[in-house]
Amino acid sequence: MTAPPPPIVPHVQDSFVRQSMMRTIEATLLAAADGICVIRAPIGPGMRQQHGAGHAGLAFTLGDTAAGYAALSLLPPEREVMTAEIKINLLAPAIGDWLEARGEVIRAGRRLIVIRADVWALNGDQRKGIALMQGTMIPVDPA
Amino acid sequence: MTAPPPPIVPHVQDSFVRQSMMRTIEATLLAAADGICVIRAPIGPGMRQQHGAGHAGLAFTLGDTAAGYAALSLLPPEREVMTAEIKINLLAPAIGDWLEARGEVIRAGRRLIVIRADVWALNGDQRKGIALMQGTMIPVDPA
Amino acid sequence: MTAPPPPIVPHVQDSFVRQSMMRTIEATLLAAADGICVIRAPIGPGMRQQHGAGHAGLAFTLGDTAAGYAALSLLPPEREVMTAEIKINLLAPAIGDWLEARGEVIRAGRRLIVIRADVWALNGDQRKGIALMQGTMIPVDPA
Amino acid sequence: MTAPPPPIVPHVQDSFVRQSMMRTIEATLLAAADGICVIRAPIGPGMRQQHGAGHAGLAFTLGDTAAGYAALSLLPPEREVMTAEIKINLLAPAIGDWLEARGEVIRAGRRLIVIRADVWALNGDQRKGIALMQGTMIPVDPA
Repeated sequence: MTAPPPPIVPHVQDSFVRQSMMRTIEATLLAAADGICVIRAPIGPGMRQQHGAGHAGLAFTLGDTAAGYAALSLLPPEREVMTAEIKINLLAPAIGDWLEARGEVIRAGRRLIVIRADVWALNGDQRKGIALMQGTMIPVDPA
Repeated sequence: MTAPPPPIVPHVQDSFVRQSMMRTIEATLLAAADGICVIRAPIGPGMRQQHGAGHAGLAFTLGDTAAGYAALSLLPPEREVMTAEIKINLLAPAIGDWLEARGEVIRAGRRLIVIRADVWALNGDQRKGIALMQGTMIPVDPA
Repeated sequence: MTAPPPPIVPHVQDSFVRQSMMRTIEATLLAAADGICVIRAPIGPGMRQQHGAGHAGLAFTLGDTAAGYAALSLLPPEREVMTAEIKINLLAPAIGDWLEARGEVIRAGRRLIVIRADVWALNGDQRKGIALMQGTMIPVDPA
Repeated sequence: MTAPPPPIVPHVQDSFVRQSMMRTIEATLLAAADGICVIRAPIGPGMRQQHGAGHAGLAFTLGDTAAGYAALSLLPPEREVMTAEIKINLLAPAIGDWLEARGEVIRAGRRLIVIRADVWALNGDQRKGIALMQGTMIPVDPA
């Protein structure tokens, strides 16, 4: 017997597949429920900075998206979230095969949802923290 | 007579073309000298969030890169810079044809270079501020 | 003839005097109108870090308050604002007689007010930038 | 038998008592070792915002100081640290008797020390998270 896959809230999955950026970076939604979301993407050949490490923009994109869907996983299906602001501290170059981001809701208020995210580089069977993020999502009504 | 194009420091240009991410997002380096850098990229079909606006990750990627090259434009050719941290506040959805980011050095110390960046969406002949960034670059020796 | 003093919106003045922290740091409200606010306080003997420069907490307190009242100056008298988040980059030690903070509204939305603030140390007739801030205020109804 | 008090690295204690701001806010250093530091201060009558809650500047001052001494606890006695930048997200009003801040080193590099801090309000026997901080300290040589 194997463990069941982590749960993914359906309206997060629906939103994820509508983001063309997620296809461009070949991201996979691994989990999204109960205020936590995990997303993974390859450090592909078109995603690099000048020394061949993954671009900070890739780490940000994954972390921001994981944090946003961590927030959305707590909201009813008809709501949306937007990023109000995020701060990223880069800890190490993004060297490896994959980046994995884990977003987490710290406090879900009616108007502001405070989030954190961690981003790791996966290099073979090693896992190294490469970025730390802290920010604010806001619930919005769909356009 | 037309105005000369804005100057681009050669070692910034060299570094820019080595970033595969800049090709992926089809970015153009418009200016990089004296602590200021301007970069532009289309809000392409593969760069969108779930409602069709430009992804926050695209705005971040442009702003981070413009800020980094603003810093590098002040350093001698043999140095490099890395992003230590940046914070982004999103002001409005990135709707339009292009995003343009302008990075600027606020204080260039020996160890830390404090930067700001602004990002605009260009929609026809309109220009709207969509993101504000503030952060820190660090000078490094090449690997 | 001398220039008139800068304007101060009455409900900002009322709120300012109700903050006991402003008395503790001996702050003076110099201007508050049209989305801009200026506050000054001495770098007093009880406001120092371990080397005798002004504490980062003093710079933050002034900048946060100036930014908050810049936001409040745009709202009707019956509203209030709260700080949702702010980021501060410290540029230089706070050495001198006074700190002066200038807060400015960058974008006033219905739900989020994005602000910036600058903090200077005034040393005799010299003025040096010591901190840069960027953050978000939210309009709230009074308790 | 009772548990021993948490350890406090001597050079952190020495630095703490030289900060006049710590006396002004009546702060107590509760622990400082191994990259973690805890500081507590009363939400005194002179430390309030306009509604009587603790001022955001008090929360910042405590969190910044706890984060700085978390970093310093990892360095040899002859070094110092300075705050390069910090971001604070405010989670709830600072209502209660005391604020307690816990700073923690996330990554200690040679040039940059990435930290996080949490701040709680203690109200009778209740403890509520009121702020979340993320930032960068830099090791420096004493002046």
